[in-house]
Amino acid sequence: MVNYRDQPLDRTFAALVDPTRRAILARLEREDGLSVSALAEPFAIKLPAVMKHLDVLSDAGLINRSKAGRTVTVRISTDPIRKAMEWLRRYERFWSGSLDRLVTYAESKEAEARRRETRERRGQ
Amino acid sequence: MVNYRDQPLDRTFAALVDPTRRAILARLEREDGLSVSALAEPFAIKLPAVMKHLDVLSDAGLINRSKAGRTVTVRISTDPIRKAMEWLRRYERFWSGSLDRLVTYAESKEAEARRRETRERRGQ
Repeated sequence: MVNYRDQPLDRTFAALVDPTRRAILARLEREDGLSVSALAEPFAIKLPAVMKHLDVLSDAGLINRSKAGRTVTVRISTDPIRKAMEWLRRYERFWSGSLDRLVTYAESKEAEARRRETRERRGQ
Repeated sequence: MVNYRDQPLDRTFAALVDPTRRAILARLEREDGLSVSALAEPFAIKLPAVMKHLDVLSDAGLINRSKAGRTVTVRISTDPIRKAMEWLRRYERFWSGSLDRLVTYAESKEAEARRRETRERRGQ
């Protein structure tokens, strides 16, 4: 029987569905510790909408907010991302298998070229 | 300005939000090419509900369904998972950095133990 209790992965993936939220995380990856207004700047949406996205990210544990005076600083928190990657990693063999086949193919082509070269050298 | 067009990643992460859908993918990872009824068996939900989950997974490109006679066979399709992992991978340095620090710490402890051992041997 499958267990239906609310899992942290549910919230992580739900937070990652929205492209604005992914863009916020991508920005924090390059430049961690930004103020809310600096974070909101490149978006066409209003500040309250950005704040709502930050709430979702915070609930999922993907960001931390700290307040100093009137400035709220946003920092990324990657532990949920690490856990999501661990979950996804089990599927890696599906494409690393085809990568292995590609390597085998490239190696066989290389060996073939080497044999051809040797034959040509002998022919001279 | 951020681009808001519908991205394949939106659908991938949305499909992964639901624990039943993740359980279906996890089952297909272990045992690919199952019939819909075999897939539905471990779940407490009814067959039509499972079918709806399969529709979401199929729309996100995470499964392929093929019909032979009266049997629909479900196969996993990991290309969207690979793309999701590529997106998440950019955050890897956040935890691999702390892993590096852990390795440095372990190595310094090992070097210390080695020095102590050498000193004790000389003392004998």
